[in-house]
Amino acid sequence: MRPLAIGAGLSTKVNANLGTSPDFPDLNDELRKLDAAVTMGADTVMDLSTGGDLDEIRRAIREQCPVTLGTVPIYQAAIEAGERFDDITRMSPDQIFEVIERHAQDGVDFMTLHCGVTRWSLEELDRAPRVCGIVSRGGSMLARWMQVNDAENPLYEQFDRLLDILDNYGVAASLGDGLRPGAVADANDPGQIAEMRVQGELVAAARQRGVQVFVEGPGHMPINQISGMVALHKQLCQNAPLYVLGPLVTDVSPGYDHISAAIGGTLCAAAGADYLCYVTAAEHIGLPDEEDVARGVVICRLAAHAADLAKGVPGAAQWDTEMSQARFNLDWERMAELALDPGIVHKRRGDRVTLDPQACSMCGKFCSIKLELARQAAATGDE
Amino acid sequence: MRPLAIGAGLSTKVNANLGTSPDFPDLNDELRKLDAAVTMGADTVMDLSTGGDLDEIRRAIREQCPVTLGTVPIYQAAIEAGERFDDITRMSPDQIFEVIERHAQDGVDFMTLHCGVTRWSLEELDRAPRVCGIVSRGGSMLARWMQVNDAENPLYEQFDRLLDILDNYGVAASLGDGLRPGAVADANDPGQIAEMRVQGELVAAARQRGVQVFVEGPGHMPINQISGMVALHKQLCQNAPLYVLGPLVTDVSPGYDHISAAIGGTLCAAAGADYLCYVTAAEHIGLPDEEDVARGVVICRLAAHAADLAKGVPGAAQWDTEMSQARFNLDWERMAELALDPGIVHKRRGDRVTLDPQACSMCGKFCSIKLELARQAAATGDE
Repeated sequence: MRPLAIGAGLSTKVNANLGTSPDFPDLNDELRKLDAAVTMGADTVMDLSTGGDLDEIRRAIREQCPVTLGTVPIYQAAIEAGERFDDITRMSPDQIFEVIERHAQDGVDFMTLHCGVTRWSLEELDRAPRVCGIVSRGGSMLARWMQVNDAENPLYEQFDRLLDILDNYGVAASLGDGLRPGAVADANDPGQIAEMRVQGELVAAARQRGVQVFVEGPGHMPINQISGMVALHKQLCQNAPLYVLGPLVTDVSPGYDHISAAIGGTLCAAAGADYLCYVTAAEHIGLPDEEDVARGVVICRLAAHAADLAKGVPGAAQWDTEMSQARFNLDWERMAELALDPGIVHKRRGDRVTLDPQACSMCGKFCSIKLELARQAAATGDE
Repeated sequence: MRPLAIGAGLSTKVNANLGTSPDFPDLNDELRKLDAAVTMGADTVMDLSTGGDLDEIRRAIREQCPVTLGTVPIYQAAIEAGERFDDITRMSPDQIFEVIERHAQDGVDFMTLHCGVTRWSLEELDRAPRVCGIVSRGGSMLARWMQVNDAENPLYEQFDRLLDILDNYGVAASLGDGLRPGAVADANDPGQIAEMRVQGELVAAARQRGVQVFVEGPGHMPINQISGMVALHKQLCQNAPLYVLGPLVTDVSPGYDHISAAIGGTLCAAAGADYLCYVTAAEHIGLPDEEDVARGVVICRLAAHAADLAKGVPGAAQWDTEMSQARFNLDWERMAELALDPGIVHKRRGDRVTLDPQACSMCGKFCSIKLELARQAAATGDE
């Protein structure tokens, strides 16, 4: 398996979410998506399966996955309680920790753990009613469980027990954002900020135990709030690596949320976020297919790279300059080679055949580069 | 024709470029693209045709176009010189002005005029060699013409003559960015800044004559340079409305440049740009097709709206809140209605049928909204 480092001074990393759902529980679909994600350059993948035989699916994905793999064990704990008792809120803390250990034993590299959904952070959340309430699947499962059982979140209350497992198996903790805003109107509200504070407290505890830890961020957020949010998150969490889902910069773009997320993700990463979770074009509508996954990864890499240019990550600018040199040389093979997605360059060029193989079908013989090369040649000749 | 206002305090507007090329000169293709652009919500379109009978194409587009229409007359002037003399640099200033008047007579609403490519701005450009030189088609035509003819740009030298025509026909001037950077390494270089200064000089002259004027901006630019560039452009051009093409935030994304441009466009508009020119997925590879145009318009509207949220344009946030309310109500019809592109929501939902018509195929029965509704109902019941 490829080693991976995430954090300050490094290039921004990209995650692709995979996983079955109750409506689409086919393992083979997910293995195809895994291949697509890795081929297109995902640094990590997460298995978020909620349909079919979850142990079998996770093990098959682990087997085939050459990159860092993450999971969200609370889904499986809730689903198994649902199967056993027909009520997901009847999962016991012991069952939750048992599932977490099962994932660790299977060689999962990191887990999303919604430890920041606590009695206090939920009080803060409910202080200022939201348009969209809790939109995190894990967060809403735990919040409902806490209400029905009138109990504190076991992932928070027994954080030391959690760290024992993570430490024992060398698994990194990704402190989930169960209270992330799911509407731009809900961004940076008391619930979100309260959860950040809890994350910060737990980052300190994890570090004391030597357990690797990073924190998850939103969500939905208008662009003028992003850099402030990143700065606050970094401050409250002692500069732990920040892993963001999006954020989507508007709520009105279903079908185009991968693009909304690329805008938000670029800004987040430029402001200091270290790791971007892709969003696919299926977001808010349904489960992504293989094509959505492939495109989602490329687009998220675009966002990460655009941020790396702004961050001044070593080597980032050189890539662009090489591409632009190839472009100015009208060297189409080299342009495709250097592209984020070489396949699409070949395909689009094949679809639009030109009379002049050096030019493109946009300008043809009125190619600005050819005119400019003539101008530069004449200028040099004059000297 | 629909009236349109562009500028400070208003929503960010979106333009779609259409037009034939030497390789694809079919008028009917362009009329279909025009319909697609207008249907998807373009505020304006530009006819950039360079193939086929240019007068016929422009008149047919004008006839069918219900929105503001722009053109770039220098293309036709160069192409007609090419046809007559087999050398585009043999166009005379009189021919250029004759073509401009022809476009004005045909009812074009605004024209891109590369007046800022002057002897001085070209000297500034050549002071710091670029990776990609001049990438503007109009800019490279004029720069080469100036070199071959050892003459000043007639659009600059005879700017009063140009204003006479614009004033006479009520056409707005879009001062082109012939020296825009075409590589992130070239951004904010002496050539680009010099052209901004010339644009500013001409904004003042146009305003003195009562001719409506706006200015065009880049291009390619890393995101950390965007807000400074917008502020400088606004300052040098006396706050004339700023019309930007992209900017693309990296050079390495052919096939995904519409997304790169959405990232740059959002940042530009949030920083004060007033008007975004879409970029399609075909950018840097070839001529866009109808699907590229439709998608390009939606994505550019996404960028414009994301910026409007940040700018606090009246009504912008309300749209998002209504969408998120529909989402929290699991009201799929209303979500589609409010979406930037309703068609894609219906299509994607149809492609992924779910067992529970209220839920989506991502979460099915593990829908976070249903859990959250249960939690909120129970909390209210407790009170």
